[in-house]
Amino acid sequence: MPVMLDATAADFETRFTALLSAKREDSPDVDDTVAAIIADIRARGDAALIELTAKFDRVALSPRTLRFSSAEIDALVAQVPQAERDALELAAERIRAYHERQMPQDASWTEESGATLGWRWTPVGAAGLYVPGGLASYPSSVLMNAIPAKVAGVERLAITVPTPDNKANPLVLLAARIAGVDEIYRVGGAQAIAALAYGTASIAPVDKITGPGNAYVAAAKRRVFGRVGIDMIAGPSEILVIADKGQNPDWIALDMLSQAEHDESAQAILITDDPALARDVAAAVAARLETLERRAIAGASWRDFGAIITVPDLATAAALSNRIAPEHLELCVADPDALSQRITHAGAIFLGAWTPEAIGDYVGGPNHVLPTARSARFSSGLSVVDFLKRTTLAKMTPESLRAIGPAAETLANAESLGAHGLSVRARLDHLNG
Amino acid sequence: MPVMLDATAADFETRFTALLSAKREDSPDVDDTVAAIIADIRARGDAALIELTAKFDRVALSPRTLRFSSAEIDALVAQVPQAERDALELAAERIRAYHERQMPQDASWTEESGATLGWRWTPVGAAGLYVPGGLASYPSSVLMNAIPAKVAGVERLAITVPTPDNKANPLVLLAARIAGVDEIYRVGGAQAIAALAYGTASIAPVDKITGPGNAYVAAAKRRVFGRVGIDMIAGPSEILVIADKGQNPDWIALDMLSQAEHDESAQAILITDDPALARDVAAAVAARLETLERRAIAGASWRDFGAIITVPDLATAAALSNRIAPEHLELCVADPDALSQRITHAGAIFLGAWTPEAIGDYVGGPNHVLPTARSARFSSGLSVVDFLKRTTLAKMTPESLRAIGPAAETLANAESLGAHGLSVRARLDHLNG
Repeated sequence: MPVMLDATAADFETRFTALLSAKREDSPDVDDTVAAIIADIRARGDAALIELTAKFDRVALSPRTLRFSSAEIDALVAQVPQAERDALELAAERIRAYHERQMPQDASWTEESGATLGWRWTPVGAAGLYVPGGLASYPSSVLMNAIPAKVAGVERLAITVPTPDNKANPLVLLAARIAGVDEIYRVGGAQAIAALAYGTASIAPVDKITGPGNAYVAAAKRRVFGRVGIDMIAGPSEILVIADKGQNPDWIALDMLSQAEHDESAQAILITDDPALARDVAAAVAARLETLERRAIAGASWRDFGAIITVPDLATAAALSNRIAPEHLELCVADPDALSQRITHAGAIFLGAWTPEAIGDYVGGPNHVLPTARSARFSSGLSVVDFLKRTTLAKMTPESLRAIGPAAETLANAESLGAHGLSVRARLDHLNG
Repeated sequence: MPVMLDATAADFETRFTALLSAKREDSPDVDDTVAAIIADIRARGDAALIELTAKFDRVALSPRTLRFSSAEIDALVAQVPQAERDALELAAERIRAYHERQMPQDASWTEESGATLGWRWTPVGAAGLYVPGGLASYPSSVLMNAIPAKVAGVERLAITVPTPDNKANPLVLLAARIAGVDEIYRVGGAQAIAALAYGTASIAPVDKITGPGNAYVAAAKRRVFGRVGIDMIAGPSEILVIADKGQNPDWIALDMLSQAEHDESAQAILITDDPALARDVAAAVAARLETLERRAIAGASWRDFGAIITVPDLATAAALSNRIAPEHLELCVADPDALSQRITHAGAIFLGAWTPEAIGDYVGGPNHVLPTARSARFSSGLSVVDFLKRTTLAKMTPESLRAIGPAAETLANAESLGAHGLSVRARLDHLNG
């Protein structure tokens, strides 16, 4: 049974704090293993990559077969049924349209003194996208990572996806093709991250690596951070539903289970001001768990980490939500726009009963790579900006240097940085002399 | 003597690659020490913080004196000479004006089907700024970190600054006051980072930590990343100057020395298409090094990591600059705007001979916290966006769910995520039924 909390109970604060700080994920300490794998790839390149792939994925590769050929991709994507192809195309089109609106603007302005200031955005040169193999090999994630990179203008986009026992997922390859991915390599794990970060004879290094992965992949991304940019280190998925009286309990149950089915460590929470709805949702979850295909996973998540919280009013619900800072927040209430104004920390908000979270996973348009584990307090979902960087611009004139140079000289000398001061002073003396 | 390279020489590629990959910084392995300090702060809070401060900074504190009182700050900032006060105020005003322009816009739009999409920006709730003690305790860095946070709307901004032997820097405290910092604690090192990330009885935890520090601070920031957001892990400072015929060699020498004087591991590079200027700058650096206050540091940096590269033309200079991806790039050329168009990777560009890099350190307006060690390939300087996060918004109508829901269901089923599909299907059935 999930935790049932009443926000008006005397022990609520203690129990809610316990819920907030519950550790949902075992992080096995794989750091030494990962360090050794990275060192091996750096030292021996392709040879190490091929050996590790044979060992972990049971696939025999050569430098020539590390990369999927165009013909192989053609053959695999031809297997995808038309309905799935159409659905991927629709998703890609909507994700592209949303992310195109995120493109930030360059700026430049000239002050009265003649100084010109501004900034300019440029794309990273090359990006690498990690795609897990096996169960969690999601074509939707390929779209969500690759499309923002392409919209940002990244020239070279490489994917690594392991193919355990030589099994490739045609839908992943089709998603990569639709998104405009340039290179696809059949490697995975920490060795794939190392190859992307440092390069091998067959895989040119990239500047930025994004995409989800297991503990080894996460540890490798942490280690190569600095050498390349990385996106976030994602934890298990979460959903918080805030619902008021009159909402459909079965829809809410399914929305909560749609996160719970991802992972036994996933978390689904309902906050409602209607005790009857709380009971009805609990019953609906139990009923749906009887027949759900992934009931073992979803049931474990619901049992171990699920929670239903009753509150006196929706303002309290919003305040608790802000402390949780959920990855996904559904506002299944009569006036979701008003309630949304009270939300200060959330990865993505789904407004109203007609917006199941699953829409956002696939075809809504916004990115489904979102901050987990309360990190929406300080970070955002993936966007085009993750594949861009800002160069600031400053251009002084003699007049503007006369106006602000002396202050720079004063501060430089106060910080005992003599050459800083002299670099300004030499120019001012020239102007005055 | 610095490295002298000729881009047309046969061995240039080898020597340039060696320059690019030269390791300038010893990273002492302090990770175990830092892990123990963090664990101690988490376990014992203030008591550990006070003990570690006594040990490392030789300052005896109590929970009541961890934080500077308003009266103490008043007394210290009263010592600051008026000229320095005026210079700080001017710098703060210009930095604030620049960063206010960076505030990103919220967006919301409604599609023909009735679906409303968009995003909203909100500030992090609390930010912590680390300020080093001793030699590298720069008031300008306080402004550069604190002002973007305040412009972003961060409600609570705390500073930690160690006061070894109980010596506080009045200019740092004044900068903090001018920037609107709310709390200042006299602690430093990994223990300060741990206190900011996890909180103690006296220091409430923050959501984001920024600011420079030594190897212990950097290792601590890496460790608490995920629990809180962090800015970059900064390396030693760098400048690249591209100059053409007729530029003033003494000004260029001073600009290069103004980075070299920061740190023996700093790097200053000149690229020019004029061999005579290359010789003149080398001579000017040598001459200025005779009298510079920080000649020991600047001289070591120039000797060990300085470089002068001659190129056949400015297009080659730009191409090499893009491979270096410098933190600071000065374009001391006749037409800096044209050359700037060729630059794809740089933290900040200073255009023309009237724009010494030192202007950007203090009063230009753009941030001086910039990506080092070639990370301008994938990251940007500090900005207001570092203290904001984006929440994406989606709101479907029955009509829009009818239009795109089936595609979501198809993809969910293709990914074997049954509850995802059912959460859409249940609503579509209701509409159809």
